[in-house]
Amino acid sequence: MKVGGQHFRTIWLNPANEQVVQLIDQRFLPHRFVIEEVSTVAQMAIAIREMHVRGAGLIGASAGYGMYLAAIEAAGSPAVAGFDQHLANAAAQLKATRPTAVNLAWAVERQLTNIAKGKSEPDWHKTVQRKVALALATAKEIAAEDEEHCRMIGQHGLSFIEQIARKRDGKPVNVLTHCNAGWLAFVDYGSALAPVYAAHDRGLPVHVWVDETRPRNQGSKLTAWELGQHGVPHTIIADSSGGHLMQRGDVDLVIVGSDRTTRAGDVANKIGTYLKALAAQDNEIPFYVALPSSSFDWTIRDGSEIPIEERGAEEVKRADGWRDGQMLEVSVAPEGSPAANFGFDVTPRRLVTGLITERGVCKADEKSILELFPEHVS
Amino acid sequence: MKVGGQHFRTIWLNPANEQVVQLIDQRFLPHRFVIEEVSTVAQMAIAIREMHVRGAGLIGASAGYGMYLAAIEAAGSPAVAGFDQHLANAAAQLKATRPTAVNLAWAVERQLTNIAKGKSEPDWHKTVQRKVALALATAKEIAAEDEEHCRMIGQHGLSFIEQIARKRDGKPVNVLTHCNAGWLAFVDYGSALAPVYAAHDRGLPVHVWVDETRPRNQGSKLTAWELGQHGVPHTIIADSSGGHLMQRGDVDLVIVGSDRTTRAGDVANKIGTYLKALAAQDNEIPFYVALPSSSFDWTIRDGSEIPIEERGAEEVKRADGWRDGQMLEVSVAPEGSPAANFGFDVTPRRLVTGLITERGVCKADEKSILELFPEHVS
Repeated sequence: MKVGGQHFRTIWLNPANEQVVQLIDQRFLPHRFVIEEVSTVAQMAIAIREMHVRGAGLIGASAGYGMYLAAIEAAGSPAVAGFDQHLANAAAQLKATRPTAVNLAWAVERQLTNIAKGKSEPDWHKTVQRKVALALATAKEIAAEDEEHCRMIGQHGLSFIEQIARKRDGKPVNVLTHCNAGWLAFVDYGSALAPVYAAHDRGLPVHVWVDETRPRNQGSKLTAWELGQHGVPHTIIADSSGGHLMQRGDVDLVIVGSDRTTRAGDVANKIGTYLKALAAQDNEIPFYVALPSSSFDWTIRDGSEIPIEERGAEEVKRADGWRDGQMLEVSVAPEGSPAANFGFDVTPRRLVTGLITERGVCKADEKSILELFPEHVS
Repeated sequence: MKVGGQHFRTIWLNPANEQVVQLIDQRFLPHRFVIEEVSTVAQMAIAIREMHVRGAGLIGASAGYGMYLAAIEAAGSPAVAGFDQHLANAAAQLKATRPTAVNLAWAVERQLTNIAKGKSEPDWHKTVQRKVALALATAKEIAAEDEEHCRMIGQHGLSFIEQIARKRDGKPVNVLTHCNAGWLAFVDYGSALAPVYAAHDRGLPVHVWVDETRPRNQGSKLTAWELGQHGVPHTIIADSSGGHLMQRGDVDLVIVGSDRTTRAGDVANKIGTYLKALAAQDNEIPFYVALPSSSFDWTIRDGSEIPIEERGAEEVKRADGWRDGQMLEVSVAPEGSPAANFGFDVTPRRLVTGLITERGVCKADEKSILELFPEHVS
């Protein structure tokens, strides 16, 4: 999408040197637009763990590029055993960075499978070249798929906004979203925000209530920034405000993303999503989850099986922001008080109106999901 | 309750000069313990509006002391008309500071009624002395009642914690609370936290999940601080976390305060309370509202009639905290993005398990409330 009028993706190869990955270092947004160069898998693991990049699709794409960088590094190995060992280590290193994100393991496994297709030949140098080329092709493929899937999610979700717009006589359609499931969370377009961008680009009046999303403020820092850069009207609210807005009739629909969705339709997403789903149900407001199919975890049914990442207490006890031209952290709690920091919660499928995927919209139940994705019928 | 081992109330008269009110300036907590001296009604209006003092009971007590300061000022008037005019102006000034807090108007009206009982005599000087004495007595009475009512709420609410403790084999009872309805929100003891203090002081194991309560962080700044000072185990969480904790079985009961409760039992409290009530219902966890009867608004039935204060957008776009020995504000949102800041929401009575008042516990319905407070049967 647009940044200062120019089109950007969140991650790409350096055009001058394809052995280097470039990405938007999101830690400095909305205050500074920083592009980071990543040339080792260790750097990529840090970028994922320390959330220079974050969001379901972008984590997957970053892991894909990370495995490509690992293959370049492994190419220095004298034989296949060393090469494979380096890749296995890199895979483990990348997978350990963010335990809840299913796209991470999915992208890493896809790379391992594809790289393994580069069969050993007598000329080890040639074998390695082939494997690295496969890793590069796979990394590009993962990113391109993510982009296309998000574009399709936008087209499928657009109809819900159009339907409401028709009844609103030119008044804006109010969408509430939580966290950042915009293009910054993917390679482009986003999941939850893809229908919003599609509606806006088609000239429909749309306004987004942006949950600030403590403790890391992905809403106020990232969602507000990307909507603003693209020119979409929006208003930042504290995470506690959504229920009140729904009671007042100021929310027409809720669209959120998902870090992991079970085959039965339970949705793990940023902590607090469950509370918004409860409020939507209580006020009879549609609650949609937008996700590319890479965010499904086909191995589990029940959301209670999803591991929930616990992050450091300091994120809750501090707030970081911009002051006098620099990022500063301030303490917002007594030094002696402990804090707990759960990254995600699980919204049970009974609270989800529908899932918006690249293949279309379905109900949040196993039968409906498998009708769209029959290849996962077990 | 205790601060550094010493007993404090939130507001009191300067023992050396009873024409000066002293109060804890809560803006600097938890980082600095600042006592402010207030000697004019204009200063008191600022202290309430700018939230040096906040919380249902403390706003009422502050308004009571504010009207006492107004009476001292008015005593300079040469005749009753001027005196009454000054009091009326002061009343309007105080009432305008925080529109949602019912205790504010309640305390101001009580002062006007009581001061008016000081009938005019031929000696205007004597009349004025009597009126000022009545204002002082009323201010003290409002504060003393608030303290005693909170103490009684603690005794009535204690039984719920005791009941759960009996089944827990020494494991702590987990209470979740939102915002600050502790002693800092009243003259002493608090409403929501009064049962917690009562349980702790009786040696029962109790642990409090403290919602940080954005945008002003009354939870992480005030509730965590006062619990810590009194030695009660607690953990700060982001406002979005409560639902997840309830799903996991880590919350035994929710107790919150109220800024205004209708005669039918609808509860206006800090924005976000409604979301916690929904989650408590969804997980079959008792949801109690603790309030002194001064927080009832006997004039209305339906919560939708309660005016909801909208505060400045800057509170959402910024976070303030402590760094290098001073309070600093940092910007957490794009400069160009608007924000909305709703102070309160209304939790409908159907989500409230019970109201804990100074006279005992009742269901959140008009009949049950009026059984405890028959003087308000209309």
